[in-house]
Amino acid sequence: MESSRNLKMKFDDLFDVLVKDLTENQPADTSPALKWFQQVLLYNVPHGKKNRGLTVVQSYEFLIGEKKEMSDEDFKITAVVGWCIELLQAFFLVSDDVMDHSITRRGRPCWYTVPGVGLIAMNDALYIESSVYKLLKKYIRNKPYYIDIVDLFHETIHQTIVGQCLDLLTSKEVNLDGFTLDRYNAIVKYKTAYYSFHLPVACAIYMVGINDERSHQLAKDILLKMGEYFQVQDDYLDCFGDPELTGKLGTDIEDNKCSWLIVQAWSKADNRQKEILKVNYGKPEECNLKMVKMVYEELNLRTVYEDYEAKSFQEISKLIEGIDSCLPKTMFNEFAKKIYKRNK
Amino acid sequence: MESSRNLKMKFDDLFDVLVKDLTENQPADTSPALKWFQQVLLYNVPHGKKNRGLTVVQSYEFLIGEKKEMSDEDFKITAVVGWCIELLQAFFLVSDDVMDHSITRRGRPCWYTVPGVGLIAMNDALYIESSVYKLLKKYIRNKPYYIDIVDLFHETIHQTIVGQCLDLLTSKEVNLDGFTLDRYNAIVKYKTAYYSFHLPVACAIYMVGINDERSHQLAKDILLKMGEYFQVQDDYLDCFGDPELTGKLGTDIEDNKCSWLIVQAWSKADNRQKEILKVNYGKPEECNLKMVKMVYEELNLRTVYEDYEAKSFQEISKLIEGIDSCLPKTMFNEFAKKIYKRNK
Repeated sequence: MESSRNLKMKFDDLFDVLVKDLTENQPADTSPALKWFQQVLLYNVPHGKKNRGLTVVQSYEFLIGEKKEMSDEDFKITAVVGWCIELLQAFFLVSDDVMDHSITRRGRPCWYTVPGVGLIAMNDALYIESSVYKLLKKYIRNKPYYIDIVDLFHETIHQTIVGQCLDLLTSKEVNLDGFTLDRYNAIVKYKTAYYSFHLPVACAIYMVGINDERSHQLAKDILLKMGEYFQVQDDYLDCFGDPELTGKLGTDIEDNKCSWLIVQAWSKADNRQKEILKVNYGKPEECNLKMVKMVYEELNLRTVYEDYEAKSFQEISKLIEGIDSCLPKTMFNEFAKKIYKRNK
Repeated sequence: MESSRNLKMKFDDLFDVLVKDLTENQPADTSPALKWFQQVLLYNVPHGKKNRGLTVVQSYEFLIGEKKEMSDEDFKITAVVGWCIELLQAFFLVSDDVMDHSITRRGRPCWYTVPGVGLIAMNDALYIESSVYKLLKKYIRNKPYYIDIVDLFHETIHQTIVGQCLDLLTSKEVNLDGFTLDRYNAIVKYKTAYYSFHLPVACAIYMVGINDERSHQLAKDILLKMGEYFQVQDDYLDCFGDPELTGKLGTDIEDNKCSWLIVQAWSKADNRQKEILKVNYGKPEECNLKMVKMVYEELNLRTVYEDYEAKSFQEISKLIEGIDSCLPKTMFNEFAKKIYKRNK
């Protein structure tokens, strides 16, 4: 199997090719739009960690088996589908940032805040989305799995939009009673887990020619569980992580986010603690932050998290052990190893 | 052939079924989002003239020929595809209204201005878009033309987004030199003609089983020309139409729109007239409006329009006469008759 650094370099190199596909040799009367869209792509797409995109290639490698080498053609089309997921991610981030009035993204100003952009960002987000289908058509239109992949992108986008809707409706709640665990789990599943965990692997599964419902259902069950765990961990690290390691200062408490921690705290708090949370959650001052964290400590949320983590790992391992289709258990175990007990 | 009034009623009746398809029998954990989306659909989708949607059904009737009756099943799936185009239209209108800061749409407040909505409207627009694919999958996934129709929707959405980008970039121009005829034609073609004129008929052509490139190219050439003419007419009526007949008061001059009239005026004006247009175009006062209209009259734009209209009608008739594939000329002639010389 190719070294992951080498793979990442080859993956990165493909981006310029795709930008050219999308912005060159187009009708002359669209050229001002194409010049604009080139900037949109360069600013918003290639600066993430690219885990989702790389996962398509890596999953495909696992799925064809260790004996087989991946051909250059296989690499290219799996990497194209990987970049399509990165485009999808950029589409969600650009539009979510407008809706959430966010300020920075990946260490730079959000696209809509760049001078001369503004609400055009919404059209730019749509452009990024529609580019996904342009690339899928160009590179895999003649493959037997084309419809399956296109349908899967449609479904995943739909699920993510449902998740964003749940998130926006929940953040309009005026009190913390709206922050239930059921609601939290639904938001995580629809807004994040489908597109970040399920989609990349499901694409690779279709691409190696596996399209029985059973295999896809098994993969989905495992990957959505991983997605849920990943987000809980993210919420935990936002508050209790080491900024030196995570590279960011958490702001979930100040931002009134429906985080796993506040959901747990609210469900376990007594009246005094509820009062403290009510008064201090979603407020900007250092003293508010301290009061919320004090309640978190009183409720032993670090231990609650560790218990959740152990239980979640067990559940996933059991699901992986139970795989009774041609899907390789090693692939899922590798993914699980990567995310469990991470501290950054 | 069915009476057009009867057809419209049957078409309208289908909408409730589609709303149910989209919002009932979905996973329980998404129910708050589904309740929200039901309102989104009811507010934004069914209140237009539905010409685009009905055109799919009518074109299909023409294409199967006058001798054949349309089966109930044929009606249903063509009407579903028609409603998908109405959904597409709603998706564009909801998001364009946010980007353009519009106030009213179809005689009611724009969705994003409704209390409690705001920028969630962007996610709602995305939801409407993604519903299109849900319906296409449910109703035509097993048809031989499924991929062609899905690809066509992708391409059309992409073209419309390119058109919206050209429009937004043009409206940022600080002087009228940006309002060229080439730019005008490009905006009209990409932003409006593809989805309003080409898409409905192209869908019907695929649905009767015609998929040769030649027929589709012929249809596209004719329909894009009609789309261009329709928009020029719209721009003309905005200024010179009778509000009693059109049912609306034009605001293109006040709104600094890149209208066909200002494009013509700017290209024909002498220095004095250019000065008047510069000072008065895009200004809100009655006196500004009068000055612009005075220049339009000085430049005989009514006559320029009549010449354009005659020439455009000739061109389209020639294109229709030249059809050398199995497409029925009567269909295009009927469409042409409907839009030429309209005064509302």
